[in-house]
Amino acid sequence: MKIKVSIIGASGYTGGELVRYLLKHPSVEISHLTSNSFAGKSIEKAHPSLVSCALKFETCDTDKIAKNSDLVFLCLPHAKSAKMVKEFLDRKVKVIDLSADFRIKSKSLYEKWYGAHPCPELLNRAVYGLCELYRKEIKGAALVANPGCYATATILSAFPLIKKGILKKGSLIVDAKSGTSGAGKKLETQYLFCEVNENFFAYALEGHRHWPEMRQVLGEDFTFVPHLLPIQRGILVTVYARLAKKMERSSLLSLYQEFYQGEPFVQLLPEGSFPQIRSVQHSNFCQIGVQGDSTGTQAIIVGVIDNLGKGASGQAVQNMNIMFQWEETRGLI
Amino acid sequence: MKIKVSIIGASGYTGGELVRYLLKHPSVEISHLTSNSFAGKSIEKAHPSLVSCALKFETCDTDKIAKNSDLVFLCLPHAKSAKMVKEFLDRKVKVIDLSADFRIKSKSLYEKWYGAHPCPELLNRAVYGLCELYRKEIKGAALVANPGCYATATILSAFPLIKKGILKKGSLIVDAKSGTSGAGKKLETQYLFCEVNENFFAYALEGHRHWPEMRQVLGEDFTFVPHLLPIQRGILVTVYARLAKKMERSSLLSLYQEFYQGEPFVQLLPEGSFPQIRSVQHSNFCQIGVQGDSTGTQAIIVGVIDNLGKGASGQAVQNMNIMFQWEETRGLI
Amino acid sequence: MKIKVSIIGASGYTGGELVRYLLKHPSVEISHLTSNSFAGKSIEKAHPSLVSCALKFETCDTDKIAKNSDLVFLCLPHAKSAKMVKEFLDRKVKVIDLSADFRIKSKSLYEKWYGAHPCPELLNRAVYGLCELYRKEIKGAALVANPGCYATATILSAFPLIKKGILKKGSLIVDAKSGTSGAGKKLETQYLFCEVNENFFAYALEGHRHWPEMRQVLGEDFTFVPHLLPIQRGILVTVYARLAKKMERSSLLSLYQEFYQGEPFVQLLPEGSFPQIRSVQHSNFCQIGVQGDSTGTQAIIVGVIDNLGKGASGQAVQNMNIMFQWEETRGLI
Amino acid sequence: MKIKVSIIGASGYTGGELVRYLLKHPSVEISHLTSNSFAGKSIEKAHPSLVSCALKFETCDTDKIAKNSDLVFLCLPHAKSAKMVKEFLDRKVKVIDLSADFRIKSKSLYEKWYGAHPCPELLNRAVYGLCELYRKEIKGAALVANPGCYATATILSAFPLIKKGILKKGSLIVDAKSGTSGAGKKLETQYLFCEVNENFFAYALEGHRHWPEMRQVLGEDFTFVPHLLPIQRGILVTVYARLAKKMERSSLLSLYQEFYQGEPFVQLLPEGSFPQIRSVQHSNFCQIGVQGDSTGTQAIIVGVIDNLGKGASGQAVQNMNIMFQWEETRGLI
Repeated sequence: MKIKVSIIGASGYTGGELVRYLLKHPSVEISHLTSNSFAGKSIEKAHPSLVSCALKFETCDTDKIAKNSDLVFLCLPHAKSAKMVKEFLDRKVKVIDLSADFRIKSKSLYEKWYGAHPCPELLNRAVYGLCELYRKEIKGAALVANPGCYATATILSAFPLIKKGILKKGSLIVDAKSGTSGAGKKLETQYLFCEVNENFFAYALEGHRHWPEMRQVLGEDFTFVPHLLPIQRGILVTVYARLAKKMERSSLLSLYQEFYQGEPFVQLLPEGSFPQIRSVQHSNFCQIGVQGDSTGTQAIIVGVIDNLGKGASGQAVQNMNIMFQWEETRGLI
Repeated sequence: MKIKVSIIGASGYTGGELVRYLLKHPSVEISHLTSNSFAGKSIEKAHPSLVSCALKFETCDTDKIAKNSDLVFLCLPHAKSAKMVKEFLDRKVKVIDLSADFRIKSKSLYEKWYGAHPCPELLNRAVYGLCELYRKEIKGAALVANPGCYATATILSAFPLIKKGILKKGSLIVDAKSGTSGAGKKLETQYLFCEVNENFFAYALEGHRHWPEMRQVLGEDFTFVPHLLPIQRGILVTVYARLAKKMERSSLLSLYQEFYQGEPFVQLLPEGSFPQIRSVQHSNFCQIGVQGDSTGTQAIIVGVIDNLGKGASGQAVQNMNIMFQWEETRGLI
Repeated sequence: MKIKVSIIGASGYTGGELVRYLLKHPSVEISHLTSNSFAGKSIEKAHPSLVSCALKFETCDTDKIAKNSDLVFLCLPHAKSAKMVKEFLDRKVKVIDLSADFRIKSKSLYEKWYGAHPCPELLNRAVYGLCELYRKEIKGAALVANPGCYATATILSAFPLIKKGILKKGSLIVDAKSGTSGAGKKLETQYLFCEVNENFFAYALEGHRHWPEMRQVLGEDFTFVPHLLPIQRGILVTVYARLAKKMERSSLLSLYQEFYQGEPFVQLLPEGSFPQIRSVQHSNFCQIGVQGDSTGTQAIIVGVIDNLGKGASGQAVQNMNIMFQWEETRGLI
Repeated sequence: MKIKVSIIGASGYTGGELVRYLLKHPSVEISHLTSNSFAGKSIEKAHPSLVSCALKFETCDTDKIAKNSDLVFLCLPHAKSAKMVKEFLDRKVKVIDLSADFRIKSKSLYEKWYGAHPCPELLNRAVYGLCELYRKEIKGAALVANPGCYATATILSAFPLIKKGILKKGSLIVDAKSGTSGAGKKLETQYLFCEVNENFFAYALEGHRHWPEMRQVLGEDFTFVPHLLPIQRGILVTVYARLAKKMERSSLLSLYQEFYQGEPFVQLLPEGSFPQIRSVQHSNFCQIGVQGDSTGTQAIIVGVIDNLGKGASGQAVQNMNIMFQWEETRGLI
């Protein structure tokens, strides 16, 4: 028995990636793909590699889609997404929302970074979909807020330090580097090939929108500086932390191994190895390398994900697998 | 004694490159740089590497600029350029126009590719600024139409075959590949980093706008297929031609060497060598490699230029040098 | 029931890609992976993305491998491959050879391009594994010579013209562009990042090793100029052909559609559309766009494949599927 | 009056860049270029863009070169360089050494990172050529040790904090990212196009060779993690520092502006602006952006240079200008 799923806003990079995953997923059938700009056109106009799948974009007819869908994925800009979430929840359709709208629990905090929230009354129904941390809550959820890409990489890399109580308060620094698809298909000069290619820079030094969502999970203030990489996909975070107590290098790695024991999508690298973005492209994996310094007082953690995989559409599928109580790796490996 | 020059439309890639050349040119002083979108801002907002030169963008006040300029370079879209050309010529200012507006002699042909021509009465005053072919005419010109980038690469690579009468009529094929800065800073999805990077494709198979300009100089129909390269700058053309009469490989090279004898910016490579785009980036050079086949009936010519150098701003400076009777390499080597 | 397969020379790019395909193939179990340089090491040392699959490289023990394998894939340099082919065929193991050793039927022709052939006596047992053309022969073969990447792209793009008798003899020109993984992991200065990146050039103008293999299938002399693209994977060929008789643009496309009717891995694009390399990366698809000129006397065909997919490992899997009489798309879509 | 200069080891990336600078330098004439692998060949075999300059590589005949040179630049691997330094100093030729051999004052520290030092007796004659810090010493020097690329970027970005006494001891973290030309033309798998392209990773987490050289100047332990960028040239360092005392954001910037007052090659960006690698490519500039956090207790400094410019050959020319008491920008702007 397959469930029926639809994607709202399917012409962007996360939408395309989601279609790719769902076409290979044995328990899912795609009902509707919507796109305002591509409505009526066949899918290869936006995603040329999908020419064989014979799908078409439609405009978003909520009633029709709700009737034909057990689950919808929303790949919409923030604020736009929240309204749509309400429409589908009201029609008893489960929702995985890839926007930022339901990631932050606090209405006021959300509004500081994103402007007015269209449906604050739903905030407390949403579960933050970082699978490795909130698996239990996701299982019963009708609305999952799929985490941001920077947030996923940062939290997976830094959280064990905090959870295990070995982070020295106030010492956490995350130097993050992201491929350009993280910005979506936005038509801005800064994302033109000739601006990104052979270039590299830091941005959002005043604060990045993913910060409050990470802060909420980590429960700690920290320094976060994102940079734009001249590559398509992939995020690498280099995490610097002072330790609350001295720790052997190997104990640090053991702590991480223990924390992620049995996790199908988190791969701890052996001592002395550090991950490349290459290793996780086109996958839902997160690879983490752990380094303690010789004095036992500092940890350097390097984590990588594919921003369109574990950082967006891959994790969305993982969330679906959890919600429908399938094995978590289905359609993902 | 320095002349005064201004650039109209200086915030794009050709404008930026022109400023770079002009700042190093010993006989030139920059009077005005105009840009609608950047007016009032300092130059590094559009060209961050030029932060030290303390120049600013202005709106285009024709009278003021004409008063302070011996020469203006127009880096404007077609049609917009033609109107401006008239304004400056009327005010006795020399013009080098980097748009397509005065490249094609025939009004009707122009209008087939570009739409209505705003100033057809000026068409016969313009000289086509392919320096190696029209040096004499450029010297006395008040209006020089700076050639297109594809046209420059193609004509320099193919013209000797035609001029020397050895091309078999109707056999010319030009397979052209261009870096993405050739498209300018246009905000179109197809020029986003994530669309161009790790990709490659042919386009304009129905016909490219530079075709009539090349046709006009070559005096021959030919096949032209452009492709978009995932690099910033540079054009490579691979020219295939049947020969009207059998020719030794070495004679073919000699013919090219003779044709370009003494040309400071055309470099013929030795037998068996073929140019890389790398070799001419950030320069005004054109490198050409010549290959005859073993039967003596076919020639393959490979030519490279920097589309922003010899294909645009470099050649514009070369044209200025010719117009003002300076040595042709001044400020360019 | 799964068959057992092994890969000889599995640490290179085609080897890695093959492992990726085989891990997802439902009818296959990997027995042995060999590599001289990585013997004893786990697979992620050469292919970091495969860290989870727990495979190891071994040295090549032919007897042992033959005992545990129904089929071996050889990803070895030419000449080295031929010797190994013999060893496995002698031990009744089927072979798909990704080297050039058994692609060319004529010993003398092979030796002109590659040097002495170690096992010429096997030349006539090999079937040329271009699936769309030689499906029937592949079915019964013990030894399949997997085609070269340039050859696959060129033949798929040009063959219909020849087979249907509409190519004007002697007019075929193939301008080919390949991503850098086509060169394998060879340690040569020309393949360093800093030499390839932001660069582009033509090479092998005196003749390319894949030429005789294409010539053999096409039955026609033709001009072939390869170029190196600054991308990882993908080949695009632009084919220029004069037609033996006048033909409407639409008839030309129909002819191709008819020729590839029912082929699961050849996608003909609609009139006016031309393929991007992006569309076939990480897949076994070939996309083809067909353009006739207005005079009805010339055809331009643009074809793209992934050089590691349809151009190597994907096609090798497709050949396996045919040999073992599974549906041809198994493990590939 | 021009001086005569020679380059020992001129076929690599720093050698090529140096030739490019020197050809435009009005006070310099190139006498000899040596290369073991390219001896007897013309310069374009290693540097195809320099085809017009008619220079040739020779083997290294020290006597002959010393006779014809007022200054030699050594672009050799460490240890090899030190021996050559001695030979030229003995012959009264000034030396700018681009290797690491004379950067570290302590013999034992050098030997910990690089192995036995061939000429420790010369260590105290060398001046560390970070122009902005050691201008006075460089002026009188016969031997200048040109700084490493990471060292240049890091020191220029972090030194003012230390010099001005506002760095909280032990808090300095430098997250560095370098283009691939920083590794030279080394033939290692990890520098192949297909390994670097679309990839990104941290390396040398156990310690990087440039660390002791930075440590020596900064006089402070600090954390340094380098990463490899998939671009040709450019380094960006993101420096994180706790402040010894609270400081307004604007005071922090003022402090840097004051420190670099009048420096021709250090460009402080205005408040809220941060540099791109693009801005300094092909130049000798260093751009720095300064950010204080809202609590006044932390500084984030972002610095960029071209690793082949200010990080190697550009700074070498700047050192020459200082040694010969020319204006410091000669040939560099």
